[in-house]
Amino acid sequence: ANSAKPCDKQLFTTLNRLLANPFARVVLPQNMPSSRIAKYFPVTWTHAYANAQHNAAFAVSSSAPAWMKHGVSWSFSEARAWPLSNPNAYDTSVYGARSALPTITQFYGNATGVTVVKGVVYAESDDDFAYAINAKTGHLIWRSSPVGNHLMGDPVVSGNIVYISAGSVGFNFSAVQKYAAHQPAVRGEHVSFNGVYALNAQTGKLLWRYGTVGEAMATPVVKDGDIYFATGSGHIHCINASTGQSIWDTFVGGIDNMSSLSVVNGKVYVSLSVPGWLYCLDAKTGQVIWKVTQPGVVNTGMGDVSPAVADHIVVMDAVADPKVIAGQKTVNTVLFAVNAQNGHVLWTAKMGRGPLPPAFKGGVPMIHDHVIYVGSPVNSVYQAYNLTNGRLLWTWHVPHAGPAGAGRGAPTYYQGTLYVSTGPTIYALNPRTGQVLGHETLGGRFGIVNPVIVGGTIYLGNSWDWVLATPVSRVNPFYHG
Amino acid sequence: ANSAKPCDKQLFTTLNRLLANPFARVVLPQNMPSSRIAKYFPVTWTHAYANAQHNAAFAVSSSAPAWMKHGVSWSFSEARAWPLSNPNAYDTSVYGARSALPTITQFYGNATGVTVVKGVVYAESDDDFAYAINAKTGHLIWRSSPVGNHLMGDPVVSGNIVYISAGSVGFNFSAVQKYAAHQPAVRGEHVSFNGVYALNAQTGKLLWRYGTVGEAMATPVVKDGDIYFATGSGHIHCINASTGQSIWDTFVGGIDNMSSLSVVNGKVYVSLSVPGWLYCLDAKTGQVIWKVTQPGVVNTGMGDVSPAVADHIVVMDAVADPKVIAGQKTVNTVLFAVNAQNGHVLWTAKMGRGPLPPAFKGGVPMIHDHVIYVGSPVNSVYQAYNLTNGRLLWTWHVPHAGPAGAGRGAPTYYQGTLYVSTGPTIYALNPRTGQVLGHETLGGRFGIVNPVIVGGTIYLGNSWDWVLATPVSRVNPFYHG
Repeated sequence: ANSAKPCDKQLFTTLNRLLANPFARVVLPQNMPSSRIAKYFPVTWTHAYANAQHNAAFAVSSSAPAWMKHGVSWSFSEARAWPLSNPNAYDTSVYGARSALPTITQFYGNATGVTVVKGVVYAESDDDFAYAINAKTGHLIWRSSPVGNHLMGDPVVSGNIVYISAGSVGFNFSAVQKYAAHQPAVRGEHVSFNGVYALNAQTGKLLWRYGTVGEAMATPVVKDGDIYFATGSGHIHCINASTGQSIWDTFVGGIDNMSSLSVVNGKVYVSLSVPGWLYCLDAKTGQVIWKVTQPGVVNTGMGDVSPAVADHIVVMDAVADPKVIAGQKTVNTVLFAVNAQNGHVLWTAKMGRGPLPPAFKGGVPMIHDHVIYVGSPVNSVYQAYNLTNGRLLWTWHVPHAGPAGAGRGAPTYYQGTLYVSTGPTIYALNPRTGQVLGHETLGGRFGIVNPVIVGGTIYLGNSWDWVLATPVSRVNPFYHG
Repeated sequence: ANSAKPCDKQLFTTLNRLLANPFARVVLPQNMPSSRIAKYFPVTWTHAYANAQHNAAFAVSSSAPAWMKHGVSWSFSEARAWPLSNPNAYDTSVYGARSALPTITQFYGNATGVTVVKGVVYAESDDDFAYAINAKTGHLIWRSSPVGNHLMGDPVVSGNIVYISAGSVGFNFSAVQKYAAHQPAVRGEHVSFNGVYALNAQTGKLLWRYGTVGEAMATPVVKDGDIYFATGSGHIHCINASTGQSIWDTFVGGIDNMSSLSVVNGKVYVSLSVPGWLYCLDAKTGQVIWKVTQPGVVNTGMGDVSPAVADHIVVMDAVADPKVIAGQKTVNTVLFAVNAQNGHVLWTAKMGRGPLPPAFKGGVPMIHDHVIYVGSPVNSVYQAYNLTNGRLLWTWHVPHAGPAGAGRGAPTYYQGTLYVSTGPTIYALNPRTGQVLGHETLGGRFGIVNPVIVGGTIYLGNSWDWVLATPVSRVNPFYHG
């Protein structure tokens, strides 16, 4: 087997391109999925976490192939893959576990979930690469690194274009000085290069980019031919999804960290921090229609979580009400619901006090059938609330939550069961009681990651820089594909 | 030529490794230099810019091969190489030229010069890779990316080990808040992973790493079996050069940006900023012997420039004395000489007022034969001063200095001529008058880059992420190898 094999030209060219440039785009057409199965998959991906309700659950029709119904299992190691067998993040001995976990998430791994469209899993990673992976086989179709910056969101897909967004957590020193002088400090300014990059969905080839001064960590929305996103300079943009030309650019101030937008019924909902405000803008003109906040919101909280929208109600949560108790900084998580039309606060709830979590400080809410499912890393719980009146239905305490806290990722409601990915494990819960029905431990760590379910498979990206697929049945013994 | 060639096993393995992981280490032993020429080259590289005097000039003996005497010419594109023909940095349309220049330097290219040892050019780049390149042919010997972070210094070499240092300019948000609250803010903390990484000089294989909380942007010193470096957390370290074990760790506070140390006669000289102090420590124990500053030093100035040491005198420069003139922030550059034993300031000089430059705010001084040659990006000049009494000998205004200013890199004195790399050009100057004797324009931009001269060749790294070699004779028409 070791004798020289005939080396076809395409292989030779790929090797020479990679020897010349490790960031060269790689395309392996032989790994493309068969077009026959595309119709059983989602065909677009408009929002972070699939849609404005953040419920990434897609049943498949009975005519779908068996493997889609029973589910597949594979693991794809991305460029900075850290061994799944290693329970500790890179350099835990230097930073301690509490800080090494968010650091590996923000600089090596996948901060949020993956995107699954037409038989392809798209992932963008903090290893500076975007990937297209065959959803059945887990083999690489293409990878592309159009900019030397971290890619912290979900790719969004419309037509034959995949949109990724570049930006990181860093401030340079002049921004540090401006913040100290109470002047606007732009997150990401002159910290590598930021913005939205449009790639050909088949090949990963860069079509165009819309460069921004502030970081574009948060996932854009692609809808009806337009793209909406907000950045670390307090600007909210609408650009044309085919050409990248700017349509409107509204400055509201503050910083968008990881808070992705929701665009529903001609309105854009987005939350920024420093100062902390949840905004509603007119999707056509970019005019701010209303903005609302909560007393005592602190830190980056209001710029972390992506607001969910359903039944004309916007749901958001943020850390608030800081108190030092026994020498430790503690906060509570305020969950609040707002009338999507006029911005009136319908109700608020306190999810529980606990230590101020590192890095991402909230839980991405998911709304299904008039119920909000949401976690919080402050006290590492998941809870369910009635959407209309805010009544608490149940609380589940995440086991082995770890020093950085658990509860950041959006849950997924699929065929009568709730799925949550947190730490190294995926859990199946009873949606009415929060009781655990089953779980599977895959290793690594799921950061702000939601389990994306298509048919019988759960697809996820993790902080250890892997993309994973596992059958639903391995997590939920009661599931039959 | 396009027919399938027999693919040897090693090629096939390399391709599969790169397909699996673009950051995989690549070794091409066939490109190693012949051991016969090693002795004509430097055999170690102890400091940034070659030595404590920062004069990277190495004549070769008459028995050296002809190509070493006449000089070679090649250009090696690194992983994020930006076309040399493009006069503008990446995203100049987004940031403007003044800011795009330092940004591409800090996140894509080579911030400082290269290292040339035993026929190999070693470079570390902000594209996250370290490179070993054949000094004659410009072909890749190995490349390695042991950590997903920017490599902003010069590799230092001792024995069979190459040491690189990882760290970047970013502060995370908690550091931003601490700085605003006048608490110590650590540059680089939880901004990817930092520290010193030891690589096998032949293969680039990682031997060990010494992880640090603060960034380790500045080049370490390797001397007599020990390594000395300072970080963004105000710690100055001495570790064992073979094992990486810590010997001493002295906390002085403040932030080391790009200021590399000098270790001379058992003393360590390093300068940090915020607050700005030039320190002298006992190399054995890490005890601070003295520290000195200058009135009115501002910003990161004192942590940018690497102090040079010669004839028992330490030379440093930093931006100081800020004034707003016609609405524009201006500063002057204070150059000062200090008795290396007792820290008494021998003399100070003002290099001239001008606008506050972006990013790196000083000129790396070089000392040769009792004369200091130093530039400043404040008013884009190079000047010569008498080392003993600080008398100004001449001033040369850098032509086409550009919006970010010129004058950051250390000059090199070689066989009666002074060489300076700045902007896209290398200049040959008369060391007594500063008059231009010749120049060669190579494209791209030289940041804090010194021209490294070995025999008849000048070796440089640039901000466009290229390593370049050019014959001295192309820059200086009066030079005959």
